[in-house]
Amino acid sequence: MRATLMYGPGDVRVEEVADPRLREATDVVVRITRSCVCGSDLWPYQKIPVQERGVRMGHEFIGVVEEVGGEVATLRRGDLVVAPFVWSDNTCDYCKAGLQTSCRNGGGWGPGDVDGGQGEAVRVPQADGTLVKLPVGEDDALMPSLLTLSDVFSTGHHAAVCAGVRKGSSVAVIGDGAVGLCAVLAARRLGAEQILLLGRHTSRTDLGREFGATEVVAARGEQAVAAVRDLTGGDGVTCVLECVGTKAAFDTALDVVKPGGSVSRVGVPQYSEANVGPSVFRRNLRIVGGIAPARQYIPELLPDVLSGAVEPGRVFDRTVGLDEVPDAYRAMNDRQALKVLIRP
Amino acid sequence: MRATLMYGPGDVRVEEVADPRLREATDVVVRITRSCVCGSDLWPYQKIPVQERGVRMGHEFIGVVEEVGGEVATLRRGDLVVAPFVWSDNTCDYCKAGLQTSCRNGGGWGPGDVDGGQGEAVRVPQADGTLVKLPVGEDDALMPSLLTLSDVFSTGHHAAVCAGVRKGSSVAVIGDGAVGLCAVLAARRLGAEQILLLGRHTSRTDLGREFGATEVVAARGEQAVAAVRDLTGGDGVTCVLECVGTKAAFDTALDVVKPGGSVSRVGVPQYSEANVGPSVFRRNLRIVGGIAPARQYIPELLPDVLSGAVEPGRVFDRTVGLDEVPDAYRAMNDRQALKVLIRP
Repeated sequence: MRATLMYGPGDVRVEEVADPRLREATDVVVRITRSCVCGSDLWPYQKIPVQERGVRMGHEFIGVVEEVGGEVATLRRGDLVVAPFVWSDNTCDYCKAGLQTSCRNGGGWGPGDVDGGQGEAVRVPQADGTLVKLPVGEDDALMPSLLTLSDVFSTGHHAAVCAGVRKGSSVAVIGDGAVGLCAVLAARRLGAEQILLLGRHTSRTDLGREFGATEVVAARGEQAVAAVRDLTGGDGVTCVLECVGTKAAFDTALDVVKPGGSVSRVGVPQYSEANVGPSVFRRNLRIVGGIAPARQYIPELLPDVLSGAVEPGRVFDRTVGLDEVPDAYRAMNDRQALKVLIRP
Repeated sequence: MRATLMYGPGDVRVEEVADPRLREATDVVVRITRSCVCGSDLWPYQKIPVQERGVRMGHEFIGVVEEVGGEVATLRRGDLVVAPFVWSDNTCDYCKAGLQTSCRNGGGWGPGDVDGGQGEAVRVPQADGTLVKLPVGEDDALMPSLLTLSDVFSTGHHAAVCAGVRKGSSVAVIGDGAVGLCAVLAARRLGAEQILLLGRHTSRTDLGREFGATEVVAARGEQAVAAVRDLTGGDGVTCVLECVGTKAAFDTALDVVKPGGSVSRVGVPQYSEANVGPSVFRRNLRIVGGIAPARQYIPELLPDVLSGAVEPGRVFDRTVGLDEVPDAYRAMNDRQALKVLIRP
């Protein structure tokens, strides 16, 4: 089959690889019908060390179950399924606590002998625990929104949940990428009253407004902080959803949150150390968030996606075939595309 | 009257200062009956820049109301009261949210024209909001425990509350100072099942065991981390109560907390930047805590102190008069005393 591999900065190739096959009795093989490129794929795209053997890419997909291991209880050939961006048994203590990203028997897509999602098919470990069945046809018009359950909508939701967003909350979302926009949607869905979207790409922030942003702050750094303070009576917001991952974004988050508030991070931090000193301590700020346990949230979010109550799939603004995936990376990296859907 | 002033590192003096008098109609003047030296007083004791005019010290006290401002509604001359370590109106939005340390009309003891607690008397701003009446006589045997409501027991409780300690929790308390020991007591009171106390001073950790520590880890750094992992089946604990404030203590906290767990800090951080990078993000760790809103907790904790259900006052191991306060600082700084009570 064909799959996407990354060999170095800016070097993405679609190549022939071994067809996936069952290895464990708890595996299934899924033929991928929809996949996509993630904003987090752009970090390695910019700075991965050169690889002699390519790294398999992609961690968001929907597909059809083709082969079923002997110990798989809940899935059959022909089932349409969505995969969260981390696979997990969904039975260990971490999974039961809703933290499937720390599953004792789980892992990520791509490394080792696990396939990536940007390809024609995938061997899915821990299939019963990982996959969620979708009650629609494989070409249903809801595919883009259903695909966001894999990662970006679940991740935006995680940001909001960890921050404690609820009815009446004041929220600032930092970042107008797909996760930031999904965080706006998630905050709105949870009842936030004021949602300030910090972003400078008009086409994206326009979608953010449609997703529920009550104001857009098209600035960075000190100017952004001043604008948020103006919009919040000088106090800042209760919940900051930091959807970028840079140290500058974290610093901005600390500057726009009010005492007792939460900075919830879902952008993978591109830094190790950052300010958690006296200014954080004196204000009793909560630093929360992390890698989103999408598997935990899919059952909760799915009904609203199926009903059309939310349309997170609007973050996709381009669709490509598998051969065009290198172009998709380039377009997203150059900000010519927000998020690219792949039809293998 | 006489009061304690600090002029530089190791330079604490008891001197004659102006008697406090009412300035605002919301003030009262309190004659101090019990006060004490705080572990946090040792940070300036070690590194305060030399002061031309001394800095007034002390932020924990019990006393008797002597004069009452015209707008004070709830207090009368003769009332015995305990003061939290920050004064506040207890009516603003932050106070109503339980964050009196961020009161819009509050402040600290000592700076500006506000008296410190290590003296004979204090003008108390925002007296209705700040003070809590005590239903006992001024020489009641419960005085030491009641005095810990000012700061150390409320602070230990804050650590436990922010970390989400509840029935069955596994907890590590870092630090065997008065706050650490009170955090043990607070964790026990909230139902924690396993309480590991990290500390190396046997007399202190012995008291920690009596307060509820199920195990003592008399080590630091990597050895402490290994010991905690041994005691927790390799996983670490759900809640870390960091009661020291050094970067090393914070690093240890990150190393002994399990995925999804909380690092709750109540030791004033002696650092600005620290690790909140990918290793924190991947594990969905929560960095919480901060300066404790003691005023919020006193009404909740008071009944258990009055009933004797908890005896946080056992952290006091020495009592001095006002003239001996410089010795008290020295003894605490040299770890010859855990916490010193002052009878002015």
